[in-house]
Amino acid sequence: MGLCLRFSYFAAMLSHTETIRVRYGETDQMGYVYYGNYALYYEVGRVEFLRKLGISYKDLEQQGIGLPVLSLDVKYIKPARYDDLLTIKTTVLELPASRITFYYECKNQIGMLLNTGKVSLVFTDIKTGKPIRCPQDLETLFKTHFGE
Amino acid sequence: MGLCLRFSYFAAMLSHTETIRVRYGETDQMGYVYYGNYALYYEVGRVEFLRKLGISYKDLEQQGIGLPVLSLDVKYIKPARYDDLLTIKTTVLELPASRITFYYECKNQIGMLLNTGKVSLVFTDIKTGKPIRCPQDLETLFKTHFGE
Amino acid sequence: MGLCLRFSYFAAMLSHTETIRVRYGETDQMGYVYYGNYALYYEVGRVEFLRKLGISYKDLEQQGIGLPVLSLDVKYIKPARYDDLLTIKTTVLELPASRITFYYECKNQIGMLLNTGKVSLVFTDIKTGKPIRCPQDLETLFKTHFGE
Amino acid sequence: MGLCLRFSYFAAMLSHTETIRVRYGETDQMGYVYYGNYALYYEVGRVEFLRKLGISYKDLEQQGIGLPVLSLDVKYIKPARYDDLLTIKTTVLELPASRITFYYECKNQIGMLLNTGKVSLVFTDIKTGKPIRCPQDLETLFKTHFGE
Repeated sequence: MGLCLRFSYFAAMLSHTETIRVRYGETDQMGYVYYGNYALYYEVGRVEFLRKLGISYKDLEQQGIGLPVLSLDVKYIKPARYDDLLTIKTTVLELPASRITFYYECKNQIGMLLNTGKVSLVFTDIKTGKPIRCPQDLETLFKTHFGE
Repeated sequence: MGLCLRFSYFAAMLSHTETIRVRYGETDQMGYVYYGNYALYYEVGRVEFLRKLGISYKDLEQQGIGLPVLSLDVKYIKPARYDDLLTIKTTVLELPASRITFYYECKNQIGMLLNTGKVSLVFTDIKTGKPIRCPQDLETLFKTHFGE
Repeated sequence: MGLCLRFSYFAAMLSHTETIRVRYGETDQMGYVYYGNYALYYEVGRVEFLRKLGISYKDLEQQGIGLPVLSLDVKYIKPARYDDLLTIKTTVLELPASRITFYYECKNQIGMLLNTGKVSLVFTDIKTGKPIRCPQDLETLFKTHFGE
Repeated sequence: MGLCLRFSYFAAMLSHTETIRVRYGETDQMGYVYYGNYALYYEVGRVEFLRKLGISYKDLEQQGIGLPVLSLDVKYIKPARYDDLLTIKTTVLELPASRITFYYECKNQIGMLLNTGKVSLVFTDIKTGKPIRCPQDLETLFKTHFGE
């Protein structure tokens, strides 16, 4: 049952796939995308995930809510290369509270899994720098999509 | 005893501290160093660690040995800010085999711990892309410094 | 007449417009896109310009032809900001010989001109590092589009 | 006389040389420093130039004065490569008014000239975004060093 529900999250809305073309300036002299640049791709993944849910990260900040990163974990399996057309699959598995965690799968244009990652962020009052609870309207949006 | 020995590693050579000044272009509009840019600082940390041991990463590559990154883990505690003078402490706890793992502590100019991290890399034959054992001379260098 | 012809270049093929969303990591603490990051946007502009003409920059390199940059000039008029949806208009005004020059106009989503730029690159034999003439098939493609 | 004086500027204070080690993540797959990354090196050059004069760019911003970039021009002569130890020579030739212009020469560890550049910035009131005159104390500092 739980499995079934979980499956429905994935099939429905709590996963988003974004396509990103690798830029020349993102490669290094090994001919790989530099390992730190996936942080940018993951950022695009979660921002577009939120936009699809109806949330603009830009607007959040303008309302005084920041989302600084608490942790980043990446497992590099294969390198992405110049001009690759990557798909970044971003998934949320749990309702956000004061934190929100995104899981990532990055594949190239032939479907090869290149890396997996996890990024946790914390809702923060930009003025005080203190953690806050996930804003009510966001929580409601997430709950709707989680089918709760 | 083990503790004693371990302490001596840290006090002696298997830890290296490098100072890095935060550039304007490394900050983001939150006024923080962008979370992906620590990958660059950690890179500087391990390259200077190796240089202190007598190993040039550039020379390694010219000998056909690459060190692609297998995993990156960062815990962000406090943000680094523009013009901060960071100290990146890079530590190796185990003799490298086919992999080498670096542990990081990043502090600012007033000694505040900003983040901790871990990066694992794999010795690779650049031509074939296959993992190889840590080169003999490197292993010898590490052993010397580990007091074995 | 010349004007008329020139107009037709612009209206037809020798200009290409690409849309780029500003990433958070590309901003700086002033809340602007960092001035060096337009180099990446301009790169995307010319690569997609060439792709539209039927030329893959990646393939060029695999054929042993590089295109290192000779000069970069940017006039910054207004800043791009986080989440802006930029249009990068890339134009070629002259048939490439050993050099190729791209002109840029960067606007935001409300049509405001943010910056203009110019990038010259030189066709190079990757093995020798020496300048070469623009490859025949490229020149032919350009000539076709210039209506010559 | 003017020549003599001008010579003394160069020999004395209105030029500053900073050393920068090229990071792996700053190279691209051609094995060159990516052309946009010199913007970061030039930034370091002018910030350290100002620091030597007794001016902290960070403090300027905290006083409400920004220095957004108006123009960037780079001529690329030879590429910088991984692990190169670059010297960035930053020179100011004219007293700043509402604008300040920095001239750059970037050389590698064997004294080879790699690129030259020019960056103009404008003193700005951060709150209003409007150009302002160079702050009095800065002007005085510059005048002192220009021998006026």
